[in-house]
Amino acid sequence: MSLYIGVDLGGTNVRVAKIDENGHILEDIKEPSYASQGPKVVLEHIVDMIKRISDWQSCAGVGIGVPGPVDVENGCMTIATNVPGFEGYPVVSTLKEALDIPVFMDNDANVAGLAEALLGAGKGLPIVYYITHSTGIGGALIINGKTVSGRRGYAGEIANIIIDRNRPKYNYLNAGAVENEAAGPAIARKGKEILGTETTKDVFDACRNGDPKAVKIIDDMAYDFAQMMSMISCVVDPYIYVIGGGVAQNNSDLYFDRIKAYYRSMVHEKLRDIEIVNAVLEEPGVVGAAMLVRAAGL
Amino acid sequence: MSLYIGVDLGGTNVRVAKIDENGHILEDIKEPSYASQGPKVVLEHIVDMIKRISDWQSCAGVGIGVPGPVDVENGCMTIATNVPGFEGYPVVSTLKEALDIPVFMDNDANVAGLAEALLGAGKGLPIVYYITHSTGIGGALIINGKTVSGRRGYAGEIANIIIDRNRPKYNYLNAGAVENEAAGPAIARKGKEILGTETTKDVFDACRNGDPKAVKIIDDMAYDFAQMMSMISCVVDPYIYVIGGGVAQNNSDLYFDRIKAYYRSMVHEKLRDIEIVNAVLEEPGVVGAAMLVRAAGL
Repeated sequence: MSLYIGVDLGGTNVRVAKIDENGHILEDIKEPSYASQGPKVVLEHIVDMIKRISDWQSCAGVGIGVPGPVDVENGCMTIATNVPGFEGYPVVSTLKEALDIPVFMDNDANVAGLAEALLGAGKGLPIVYYITHSTGIGGALIINGKTVSGRRGYAGEIANIIIDRNRPKYNYLNAGAVENEAAGPAIARKGKEILGTETTKDVFDACRNGDPKAVKIIDDMAYDFAQMMSMISCVVDPYIYVIGGGVAQNNSDLYFDRIKAYYRSMVHEKLRDIEIVNAVLEEPGVVGAAMLVRAAGL
Repeated sequence: MSLYIGVDLGGTNVRVAKIDENGHILEDIKEPSYASQGPKVVLEHIVDMIKRISDWQSCAGVGIGVPGPVDVENGCMTIATNVPGFEGYPVVSTLKEALDIPVFMDNDANVAGLAEALLGAGKGLPIVYYITHSTGIGGALIINGKTVSGRRGYAGEIANIIIDRNRPKYNYLNAGAVENEAAGPAIARKGKEILGTETTKDVFDACRNGDPKAVKIIDDMAYDFAQMMSMISCVVDPYIYVIGGGVAQNNSDLYFDRIKAYYRSMVHEKLRDIEIVNAVLEEPGVVGAAMLVRAAGL
């Protein structure tokens, strides 16, 4: 059985694990990522962590998941908001040189989606669409067990899909971008405006308690989310939607049925029987990173 | 050099051609499709036409393009508005049985996109997005030289992408579906309402003559079209957009620059340098159908 090294790099922590082809974590190290010290320090530290994994040289390769779009052809990040200095930095070639084994990189949503496609809720299906619903909204398209990253790594950057162009513009995203209307912070913002609450959780709690205004906020969010999904289906017509991320993990009982109903109202009748399910893997980040190596056929 | 049979089936005519791997048409037969007589008659006629091609048995296979979404796994159409009786009819297995050579099928937009990706404006690029702008709006996603058709053949059915959910609902498509706002008939409709003209061409002619109301209709159309493209980019981040179809062919000088400007305003700065170009092939339908065989590696 092939073994892989998975690396899950975040702005705060980095995790390095030895993982088998079924996604079992055999060894696992988690440490601060030292992101503020720049890519040289961060990568030297990752190399050091990998070398602490037993028999790391016998692994088929290293897969690394990073927080931002990746130019997969050139092995560097296109944008690196949470890991300063990584934009354009030759991550893949640096790690390859230091370790002398194959190295693959993609963004964190893509690797999580890959994990769900190869090992999780989408296992065995030809086209899997993964969506993370959390403080942001991100997507991943996995076709025949390989992520589609795009020319600049922006395949799956669905946060910017416009669900209603008549909404206010809040930030660098388009006016009416789905992330600004349906991600966790948008739910919290609407809670503040309409309910006088503070957090995303407050809104879901009020919805759970039957507060009609809170129910409306969640229902509107589900509509916007479903509309985004209907547009994704126009482009790739996936076999399944797998939805992960904190918002989904904690509250799917409150809004997945609403998403399904709205989605069905927006797509052709032949598409209405699609499965829309929760992500099932506990550690999609580091496991998905390792799966980049498996997806490459190693 | 491998040779292929391409079949371009429409509601009115059917074309059968012998085509080489560079897309050159070596022999070509065009006849009525007899679509109203149902799939048995239509397919027997196609078999007869193929058998009139010299040395047809030495071709690597048959590719057929049809007017509607295709379930590629099962070799049948999912919806068949212009060719009655074809919905669910086993086209691929029927032709295979009659001819005893490999047969492949996909919808007409997908095969036109495949032709542009393998031989035309997108030649050699890893991810090509083809859009036909005509009486309808259709798309095709070609990744590494293969079309992505989706679970039910609806990948590329971008007509239904919502560009403004506050618009009226005209037909089975969503309210604000891009086809109802930006395809040829939508331009004609707006011309009737605003200019008192009749056809799509009338509106473009008035725009060409500088009529400010006609310019506004075309500018609005370009905005809607660009918004659709920005959403496609969020999903697949292609290397190029290739735009074919009658509206584009005849009028790209009047609106492609507008599309490009609006598109750039709606996507992340890293995506703004994308190429958006006219389709270049003269016979994408029948050539693209033949390319289904080449794409399968035969």
